[in-house]
Amino acid sequence: MFIYNTIEKILELTAGGGFLMDYEKKALEMHKKWQGKIEVTSRVPLENKEDLSIAYTPGVAAPCLEIEKDTSLSYEYTRRHNLVAVVTDGSAVLGLGDIGPEAGMPVMEGKCVLFKTFGGVDAFPLCIRSKNADEIVNTVALLAGSFGGINLEDISAPRCFEIEKKLKEKCDIPVFHDDQHGTAIVTLAALLNALKLVKKDIHDISVVTSGAGAAGIAIIKLLMAMGLEDVVMCDRHGAIYQGRGDLNEEKTEMAAISNGKKKKGSLEEVMKGADVFIGVSAPGTVTEDMVRSMAKDAILFPMANPVPEIMPDLAVKAGAAVVGTGRSDFPNQINNVLAFPGIFRGALDVRASDINDEMKIAAARAIAALIPEEELTSEYVIPSPFDQRVAPAVAKAVAQAAKDTKVNRI
Amino acid sequence: MFIYNTIEKILELTAGGGFLMDYEKKALEMHKKWQGKIEVTSRVPLENKEDLSIAYTPGVAAPCLEIEKDTSLSYEYTRRHNLVAVVTDGSAVLGLGDIGPEAGMPVMEGKCVLFKTFGGVDAFPLCIRSKNADEIVNTVALLAGSFGGINLEDISAPRCFEIEKKLKEKCDIPVFHDDQHGTAIVTLAALLNALKLVKKDIHDISVVTSGAGAAGIAIIKLLMAMGLEDVVMCDRHGAIYQGRGDLNEEKTEMAAISNGKKKKGSLEEVMKGADVFIGVSAPGTVTEDMVRSMAKDAILFPMANPVPEIMPDLAVKAGAAVVGTGRSDFPNQINNVLAFPGIFRGALDVRASDINDEMKIAAARAIAALIPEEELTSEYVIPSPFDQRVAPAVAKAVAQAAKDTKVNRI
Repeated sequence: MFIYNTIEKILELTAGGGFLMDYEKKALEMHKKWQGKIEVTSRVPLENKEDLSIAYTPGVAAPCLEIEKDTSLSYEYTRRHNLVAVVTDGSAVLGLGDIGPEAGMPVMEGKCVLFKTFGGVDAFPLCIRSKNADEIVNTVALLAGSFGGINLEDISAPRCFEIEKKLKEKCDIPVFHDDQHGTAIVTLAALLNALKLVKKDIHDISVVTSGAGAAGIAIIKLLMAMGLEDVVMCDRHGAIYQGRGDLNEEKTEMAAISNGKKKKGSLEEVMKGADVFIGVSAPGTVTEDMVRSMAKDAILFPMANPVPEIMPDLAVKAGAAVVGTGRSDFPNQINNVLAFPGIFRGALDVRASDINDEMKIAAARAIAALIPEEELTSEYVIPSPFDQRVAPAVAKAVAQAAKDTKVNRI
Repeated sequence: MFIYNTIEKILELTAGGGFLMDYEKKALEMHKKWQGKIEVTSRVPLENKEDLSIAYTPGVAAPCLEIEKDTSLSYEYTRRHNLVAVVTDGSAVLGLGDIGPEAGMPVMEGKCVLFKTFGGVDAFPLCIRSKNADEIVNTVALLAGSFGGINLEDISAPRCFEIEKKLKEKCDIPVFHDDQHGTAIVTLAALLNALKLVKKDIHDISVVTSGAGAAGIAIIKLLMAMGLEDVVMCDRHGAIYQGRGDLNEEKTEMAAISNGKKKKGSLEEVMKGADVFIGVSAPGTVTEDMVRSMAKDAILFPMANPVPEIMPDLAVKAGAAVVGTGRSDFPNQINNVLAFPGIFRGALDVRASDINDEMKIAAARAIAALIPEEELTSEYVIPSPFDQRVAPAVAKAVAQAAKDTKVNRI
């Protein structure tokens, strides 16, 4: 999920919010009508005693005993091979904040629908009634034998980092915090294509980001894994640099690995001359003047959702070469759904034990590669979420990267 | 689940086990082919941006915010209203014993299929990697906001009692250990009809049970709640009575509430003159002579599975008036599937906060009442698991009992 503000804030910023009011009303109506967006269905016939004896007792004892002998057979005889848990504590749902586990469920069910529709992955939502990192870790780890993967969702920073790290250590199945890595992967995909368009190399560019949450940190780490060297991360107080007095643990780590030139000052100041701006922060933090101050052929991904750091038309007017946002009503929608269904599809297909950086980069490259260089335009650097080629291409690349890095188990 | 022995034991007792070998082979084949017996499917269309905006962002924020204001709306806007978790630790799966959470999954998936097929209930299996009662309780309690009910399954005694008790205290949704209560309900249903047939009253009869596990204890408690007074519970050392030196906590409690006459001795000795025998123990513990020693018109429910305490034909030959077992290839199959789908259907329909004794007894009466007195025969005291009237009748009775005892929330 991209950063998303409270409805009040959104309505204020969208001048009455007719656009959102329509969706809200329709969504309430439809959610009531749907009575849940997912369903657990049976894959087997159960019409007579014979059926019952095969799917249930006494026959079912046979696969049970086989799995007892070799736990990995749980991938052959049960749904585990295709099953992902979508886990939240409801602490950072969309941008609505800490609305609680029950209130987070509509988003988690929606996520499960996306997993199934785009990736053919069975996904089941688990909303945990705890904000304690260790309790969440323990709960998920104890259930890891029932799933083939764990997708963490909408857990607030900095707990999300600790939870993901501990779960990766404890679990023998892939653990993936989509708010971090999904966003990072799709941002990287869009950036790769945008850079081709403006003929710049990721090793040479300077990037400024706004927003020091889970997504912001993951984006920088993944871009650096791809070769980016010059990147400055900003929070609401401006550039994050080593020695700034007010940094928490995560920002201190980021200060150590980014901003090598130790730039100081406001977002406005550090954006001067930058090649790329990436925003995962708040509406209206970037002005036309700030865009004008950037390098030639500037790339901007203002992804605050639904109201970006700067509206795309204004950014273009101020000279931006490529603009991408989180919105579906503007070109270049940087949407996580381009990544996570294919990533888990690929990971499950080779029974991966992890989703590592190589797999993430492979996913980004695969998304980017779906648009041949001759088709790239400033308004088409990233495929549509409804491009049916995306998930299979991502899955294939991710599965291959898993094999190349030897985290596959088949 | 009824008590079930290891495959080795079964094969030994079924003289080569051709019957079971066939099911085993077929079950392995079919489980491999099915690739999981359940699936998580989408209930909503997702074909274009409009669909995405309603089922997911930005529209989904609206039901989230409604639930944040009033948690009970999670039953309106998410699948919770129809969703039950099937929870095990894999410690007492069928009669295979402690085979572990992964190996228990085929049974749990089967259970979910039965829930859906017979009760229209969405059920999802969670197999927990812990044998620690508090860890299991904590894990399930933290997930209670994602479900409308909890069905505990195949958890070994005595932990199952502690886990159920603590979860009932902690959770605002019904918690039901099927091995205990499902078995007890269906046994009571069969007994009610069998007693009609032999014209005896539950208040006047003497009952002897064999097996002091979860099912054995629950059966006695439910029968006593229905008015049974004279009951002796036996374990492998014979009658359980107050003061017997070797009793654990559960047996001590049972000794206090049952066997008012403080009978001592072996199962053989206490069965003399009894009206009813109920077995949830081990194959071959009852002989023809023991049946002959019982009162006139004796009723026997030897339910060890798949090989009963005494084979039905032998019991009939020795003079039993009514015999019921857990097997589908003999008359009067006492099968939990007659109870749990309808019980949860009824509990979910009125959003019950508990499944109490009144609801259990209502379920048993409803199952029994499906066979009019004039249709009762010694070979037909309980409906077939495939009798489609059962689940709706149970659901209706359970929902009414929930309302009568004020545990309903709609």
